[in-house]
Amino acid sequence: MNGDDERIVMAHGGGGELTRRLLAERVIPRLANDLLAPLADSAVLPRPAGRVCLTTDAFVVQPLEFPGGDIGRLAVFGTVNDLAVMGAVPTALSLALVIEEGLPLAVLDRLVDSIAAAARQADVVVATGDTKVIDRRGGDGLIVVTAGVGELRDGVNLDGRRIEAGDAVLVSGGIAEHGLAVMLARENLAFRTELRSDAAPLTALIVRLLDSGADVKFLRDPTRGGLAGVLADLVDLTGLTVEVEERRVPLSPAALHAAEMLGLDPLTVANEGKVVAVVAGGDAERALRACREHPQGRDGAIVGRFTDAAPALVDLITRAGGRRMVTRPYGEELPRIC
Amino acid sequence: MNGDDERIVMAHGGGGELTRRLLAERVIPRLANDLLAPLADSAVLPRPAGRVCLTTDAFVVQPLEFPGGDIGRLAVFGTVNDLAVMGAVPTALSLALVIEEGLPLAVLDRLVDSIAAAARQADVVVATGDTKVIDRRGGDGLIVVTAGVGELRDGVNLDGRRIEAGDAVLVSGGIAEHGLAVMLARENLAFRTELRSDAAPLTALIVRLLDSGADVKFLRDPTRGGLAGVLADLVDLTGLTVEVEERRVPLSPAALHAAEMLGLDPLTVANEGKVVAVVAGGDAERALRACREHPQGRDGAIVGRFTDAAPALVDLITRAGGRRMVTRPYGEELPRIC
Repeated sequence: MNGDDERIVMAHGGGGELTRRLLAERVIPRLANDLLAPLADSAVLPRPAGRVCLTTDAFVVQPLEFPGGDIGRLAVFGTVNDLAVMGAVPTALSLALVIEEGLPLAVLDRLVDSIAAAARQADVVVATGDTKVIDRRGGDGLIVVTAGVGELRDGVNLDGRRIEAGDAVLVSGGIAEHGLAVMLARENLAFRTELRSDAAPLTALIVRLLDSGADVKFLRDPTRGGLAGVLADLVDLTGLTVEVEERRVPLSPAALHAAEMLGLDPLTVANEGKVVAVVAGGDAERALRACREHPQGRDGAIVGRFTDAAPALVDLITRAGGRRMVTRPYGEELPRIC
Repeated sequence: MNGDDERIVMAHGGGGELTRRLLAERVIPRLANDLLAPLADSAVLPRPAGRVCLTTDAFVVQPLEFPGGDIGRLAVFGTVNDLAVMGAVPTALSLALVIEEGLPLAVLDRLVDSIAAAARQADVVVATGDTKVIDRRGGDGLIVVTAGVGELRDGVNLDGRRIEAGDAVLVSGGIAEHGLAVMLARENLAFRTELRSDAAPLTALIVRLLDSGADVKFLRDPTRGGLAGVLADLVDLTGLTVEVEERRVPLSPAALHAAEMLGLDPLTVANEGKVVAVVAGGDAERALRACREHPQGRDGAIVGRFTDAAPALVDLITRAGGRRMVTRPYGEELPRIC
C-alpha cells in the first residue's frame, strides 16, 4: 500500500503507539504552537486580562469539503465567532477529532492543514486536543468538536434585554451563503453556481463595530436557523416586535438563485461569516458606516427596527409590499450543514 | 406513541424550534446553573485568580452505561481529571452532545442527569454546550465531547523534566478497573464479576498530595494506554529507566480475575479515577501517607523508582521475580472504552 492509500484504522484511536505516532507525525506538527505540548493533558494559557468566555461547537457537516471551505475552517471560525459575538477576543481553542475508521490519511492531513491556516487567520492557537476513532459505517468520516476561550473586553454590555423600541437591526452582509453552498455541493449542483460558503472570522469586524461609538446592544452570528432564528430569539427575549424589510436584507444573486433552485427561504439558512447587530436607533448610521469600512462588512445593511406593536413577532415586509410573519424553522430543513 | 417511546429525530439537531424545545425542556433544566444561559453563544466565567488551563476529551464508549458509570460521568470526571493532574482547580465545562438519530429520549434524560450529578460531585458547572444529531447507522447512540477550564494553583511545578534517578512512582489505587468493567459489560460478562468502573474526580486527592509538602514532580491519570502508557511516556520524556515491582502495583482480585478472563495485561488497561504521581525519592513515604488519608487513595502504593540504568526503558520485576520490558500498547487492545 503506498502512502496515498493509507487510511485510519481503529488502532489509531487506541491510545497506544499508533495514536502517539499519528499525533506526533501528522497532527501536532501541522498545528505547531508554543501552547500545544504533546505530553500534557491540558494547556496552560497566558494569564487573562479580563473575564474569560468559554464556548463549544460540534461540527457534523457533510460533505467534509465544500466550495469556500471545509469542516476544519468551519470549526475554527464557528468557535471564534461565538466568542466574538460575546464581545470577547478569542485566544485559544481545543480540538477534538472523532474520526471514522477508513478516513484516508490524506484527507485528514488536508483538514488539519486547513484548521491550522484558519487558526492563523483568526489569530488563535489550537492549544490542546483529543483524538478518537469510531467504527466504519459508511458515514461521516470526521466529526470535529472545538471549544474556545476568549477574554472579555471591559465595558462591553451585550445584554439583549437592553433592546427597546426604535433600535435598529444591522446585518453585515449577504445571508444564507454557507448553508446553500453546502447543500449545492451535497446535491452535486455546485457546478451550477459561483456561490461559496461565507465562513470567515468576525473578530475584526466586531471590534470595529464596538469601537465605532455606536451603542451596540446585541450581537449574534446567524448560523443554524439563519437570520429568522436570531430574530425569533430576540422577539422571545425582548417581548417586542421586529419589523424587517425584505428588500433591504443583503442577498447575493447567486444565493437568491440557489435558494430558488433548492426551494428554501434564505432567511432560515445558516451563515458562518455574518453578524446580526442590534444598535440604538440613533446610532444606526454610525454603526453601518463602521461595518461597511471593513472588507467583510461592505454589503452590510440596516434591515429592520424594533417596535412595540402587539402581538410581538417578526413582521416581514415582503418585496411585493405585503406582510408575513416569520417563524423559527421548526425542525431540520437543512440537515448536517454545520 | 407514548412518552417512553420517544426518540431523537434529525430535526432535534436542526437549530429550529425542535432544537430549542429539546434544550429548554430536557437538557438545560437538568444542568441548571447561573452560568448556563440558553440564549448565549458562550458563557462568561468569573475572573480567574491565576493562569487558566484548557483541556478537551471526546468520549465514544460502548455501551453508554456500564457497571460503575456511564458516558456522562466518564466525560465529566475525565475532563476534570485532565485539569487536576496539571495542578489546576477545575471551574467550568463545556458539553457537546453528538446524538445518533433514534436514541431514546429516556436514555438521553438519564445521561444528562448523570452529567449533572457528576458535575456537582466534582464541584464544576456545565457552563455552555452544543447539540447535533447525526444519521442513524445502528451505531453509537451518543458521542460526548467535553472541554474544561481550570485555574492553575500558584507555585505548582509539574514539569516531568525535573524527574531524576531515585524519584518514586506512586499509584493511588487499583488499576485497570474502568477498561475491564466496560469490556465485561460489552461482552455480557458483567454478571460474572463485582468489578465496577473506577470513574471518579481526582481533584481533592491531588490537592491533598500537593499540600502534603512532598515534592510532586509529575501527575497523570492513566487512562488510554493504562499505567504502561504513562510510564513509557515518562521514559521518553526523562531518558531514565523506571523500575516497577509488579507485586506492589495495586490490583483488586476482581480486576485480576477479569483481566485473566479477557486475556489482557492490566498494566495497559484504562483507569478513570486513579493518579500516577512522581515524587522526590525522599518524599515517597510522606506522599503515600497523604494519598492513603483520602478515601479514594487508601489502596495507594509506591510501585517503582527511576534509575539511570541504560538503555532507558520500563523494567518490570514480575511477581515470579523475573524481569520484562513493558512497552506502550501498540494499537487498539480495548476499542471504545472511553
